[in-house]
Amino acid sequence: MVLQLYYDLYSQPSRSIYILLKLSNIPFKKCVIDLATREHLTREFAETKSKIQRVPFIHDGDFKLNESIAIVRYLSREYALDDKWYPKDSAKQAKADEFLEWNHLNIRLECATYFLVKFHIPFFTGKFSSKERIKKLLRNLERCLKDFERIFLSNGPFILGDQISYVDIHAATEIEQTRTACYDARDHFPKIRIWLDNVRSECNPAYDEAHVIINELTSIEVKPKL
Amino acid sequence: MVLQLYYDLYSQPSRSIYILLKLSNIPFKKCVIDLATREHLTREFAETKSKIQRVPFIHDGDFKLNESIAIVRYLSREYALDDKWYPKDSAKQAKADEFLEWNHLNIRLECATYFLVKFHIPFFTGKFSSKERIKKLLRNLERCLKDFERIFLSNGPFILGDQISYVDIHAATEIEQTRTACYDARDHFPKIRIWLDNVRSECNPAYDEAHVIINELTSIEVKPKL
Repeated sequence: MVLQLYYDLYSQPSRSIYILLKLSNIPFKKCVIDLATREHLTREFAETKSKIQRVPFIHDGDFKLNESIAIVRYLSREYALDDKWYPKDSAKQAKADEFLEWNHLNIRLECATYFLVKFHIPFFTGKFSSKERIKKLLRNLERCLKDFERIFLSNGPFILGDQISYVDIHAATEIEQTRTACYDARDHFPKIRIWLDNVRSECNPAYDEAHVIINELTSIEVKPKL
Repeated sequence: MVLQLYYDLYSQPSRSIYILLKLSNIPFKKCVIDLATREHLTREFAETKSKIQRVPFIHDGDFKLNESIAIVRYLSREYALDDKWYPKDSAKQAKADEFLEWNHLNIRLECATYFLVKFHIPFFTGKFSSKERIKKLLRNLERCLKDFERIFLSNGPFILGDQISYVDIHAATEIEQTRTACYDARDHFPKIRIWLDNVRSECNPAYDEAHVIINELTSIEVKPKL
């Protein structure tokens, strides 16, 4: 049975795995989960689809797996995933892992929190956070993007050096997301701007396809009624 | 040159890597970093020791690597790390990765935040958070521990089933840390209590040795002056 990818393009790691699978030529069945319906929170879903109840996840025959990074590593072992996406060379792979692990409590946490507080929560509930809180979150976000430039964008056009890898897709899909909250990292960090353009151009048309929802939401202004 | 481990046992991932190396019989040189002196925040440190400026990290000859999970994966490829600590079997390895990746924004985030707000910040600065904030953080922490029991402690005495792995050490060192903030998960989650006892007993004496600082701090009560 063909690999099944369960995803919602509203979710960042869903977008990154979707782009990777489109670029890798691994055949897969698209199984869209609409997070907005909250179907993933039911007991039946936990029992039959995913105990962790988040997207993305895969079913590979009877084998079920959550977590985008675990999925990429699994695909690199079990499928003909081109070495450039997740290197087999031990030192290069360690450097890919170093970024992917650092990312969780840095870019992932800061970008997702800013997106949630400034866009997602007000958009879906009408509840706005204070200006002070948003200012503080923005400071954290910018400190983190500065670290990202200093630590990870000084080796060449891509995070691992001269060649694009999954690591770039994973980071880029996270950083693109804050555009919905009226924050485009391109406008503030020149190295990030060039790098994002490189990643997009290497991954298109899959990149733009995965970002259709994000691009639509970017045009919506969420602000309190006067 | 022998593998060098840079660590501070006040840091959770330092404790988990320290325990693993002690149990694995991989020879290593102990290089203690005292985070309290803030030496890791200097430019010289970033240039010569670790660009990421956090612990733990390793130097393996000229190769420098941060992030505990990246380090474990590197050791499993480059050193004679017993298969039980980080399985080579593809499906088992995927399940180890699934937990390790899930952990960052769940157990790691909630335990470390509770520890920081309820213990670390008041202890080092005298600044206390409001009761409401601590109550909210405790709710998040307990929701997360409940998920941990449901999702990951239902396969046997250890996270991956019948045998201990690095995954257990990684989670246990995180959960032990909230004892400094007067919260022992053993008292609230029976499955976690049994599992923690199993992990400790499989890893001792290295487990207790790594927790000396945490155990000392647990006896200190941090509360505002009357």
